[in-house]
Amino acid sequence: MKYWFAHLLSGLVLDQNLKIVEEIKFSSLKEYSDSANLESKQRKKYPDLQPLPLDKVSKVLEQFRDKNFFFELYSRNAQITREKVKASVAEDWLIIQAIANVKELDQLNNQLVKRLREWYSLYLPELSAQLESHEKYVELVLARKKEELLKELKVKFSMGAELDQVHLEEIFALAKQIQGLYSLRNQHEAYLEQVMKKYCPNILELAGTTIGAKLIELGRGLKNLALLPASTIQLLGAEKALFRHLKTGSRSPKFGVIFAHPLIQGAKAKEKGKVSRSLADKLSLCARLDYFKGEFKAPHFRKELEEKFK
Amino acid sequence: MKYWFAHLLSGLVLDQNLKIVEEIKFSSLKEYSDSANLESKQRKKYPDLQPLPLDKVSKVLEQFRDKNFFFELYSRNAQITREKVKASVAEDWLIIQAIANVKELDQLNNQLVKRLREWYSLYLPELSAQLESHEKYVELVLARKKEELLKELKVKFSMGAELDQVHLEEIFALAKQIQGLYSLRNQHEAYLEQVMKKYCPNILELAGTTIGAKLIELGRGLKNLALLPASTIQLLGAEKALFRHLKTGSRSPKFGVIFAHPLIQGAKAKEKGKVSRSLADKLSLCARLDYFKGEFKAPHFRKELEEKFK
Repeated sequence: MKYWFAHLLSGLVLDQNLKIVEEIKFSSLKEYSDSANLESKQRKKYPDLQPLPLDKVSKVLEQFRDKNFFFELYSRNAQITREKVKASVAEDWLIIQAIANVKELDQLNNQLVKRLREWYSLYLPELSAQLESHEKYVELVLARKKEELLKELKVKFSMGAELDQVHLEEIFALAKQIQGLYSLRNQHEAYLEQVMKKYCPNILELAGTTIGAKLIELGRGLKNLALLPASTIQLLGAEKALFRHLKTGSRSPKFGVIFAHPLIQGAKAKEKGKVSRSLADKLSLCARLDYFKGEFKAPHFRKELEEKFK
Repeated sequence: MKYWFAHLLSGLVLDQNLKIVEEIKFSSLKEYSDSANLESKQRKKYPDLQPLPLDKVSKVLEQFRDKNFFFELYSRNAQITREKVKASVAEDWLIIQAIANVKELDQLNNQLVKRLREWYSLYLPELSAQLESHEKYVELVLARKKEELLKELKVKFSMGAELDQVHLEEIFALAKQIQGLYSLRNQHEAYLEQVMKKYCPNILELAGTTIGAKLIELGRGLKNLALLPASTIQLLGAEKALFRHLKTGSRSPKFGVIFAHPLIQGAKAKEKGKVSRSLADKLSLCARLDYFKGEFKAPHFRKELEEKFK
């Protein structure tokens, strides 16, 4: 009668008095994780080999109180932890960081463009009044001179002050930074698409980059998202309205971040709720397909939805 | 007996029946503003010339209901308005825009660096834990490789994941934008110093760029600031605490934005109130000197304060 006991550093064959009969050192973590194989090999050598019963483990461990041994065990243990922590950084986390940054950049850009409009309007107030698009505004401020802009705006005189170059330089420097932030935002979006194409192609196809990434962010990762019921996915991002509904009995929300989806945007007001339910259903399927590395079915889902609600 | 009446377009000499005896057209706005000179000239020609009594003005104006005349009057009137609006954009407004932008950039940078720290910590968490300075952090992320940083931090293994270049690129792009925003902020500050050196040298000298500009912003321009009592200047920027004090009887605030001034920062806790009162006194004098283009006395004030509170 012999016992088999494997720990991080070696596999042991023990006799009935728990004395070591044979020790096979593991040179790497891989050998430790393959120790089941080793056990069946040893069983050929010792036909009466049994796993060490749990109540005897502590007695065996007493033999390992040696300091050197402890240090070795500790360092290999740390190695395992490190590798697990490292492996836990999946595409999820990268997607979450990138989409969060996209949202932040949108906000910051809005704030900075408002400042730019106010500042540049000391010089040429007519432009801000006539141009709503923020991006176009920044572009024109940098690309055109005052006289050119006045001509394009068909305004004879500007009410703005004449400013020296030293003052204008500050305004232009701000505009340039804003342009840089816009292009960073676009770069992030292209990156997200690239990452999601590999990691969650179905979600990407059906939800698009921004909504898809937001769903992963709000669901705290693809795994979680795959486990959520469709009705929860439908309301991700509408938590505030949902809790208000539960608390005060106000009308329940019909959609969270998926509200911006073209299918819902294009639907009639009366049908928006229905569309959003169906869309969430399909998105939930997409999340599962992506998490379990299933087929690429999203184009099919999209067609189905489009036919149902055209 | 003749009457004299000048309007935007011409100076008129009228007889007792308000018929025009002589009309002198003004070719520019300047001639209109010099019309008092013209009046005294005309008085030599017509010794009994008198200003048109107010009750007769409306009768004279009736003669000008002609459409052509109205258009001319309107356009010259618009010209005056335009010039006044233009002239109202003084350094005040430029300073206010720039300092507001500096404050915004500080906030935005904080937010973006927090995102950078979170994102880069997926790759190398050890750096963020050991480095508090935001600016230094951004610099190191861009300048060093992972192995170099680990060596500098005296850490053997990183708990961070290995990320492909495609992921790192996004993080570096964000870091570069943050650096750009930092340098924009510094550029604004240098610009403010340059403008304030001419416009309000005394405030600049005693308060420094940031506090000085904030005072002008909170006081809504140098003119207003010059008219404020010192006790108000002392509390500019502490409005919230002041109103809480008035409403709830909590302790009254002792300083607003001047709190960051080196003299107050360097004072003992017990003396901070006293220092801030004296500083506000001198700042109020500075604002008046600057607004009325007085002498450059701020270095003298600074010395006085330093001697009083050393």
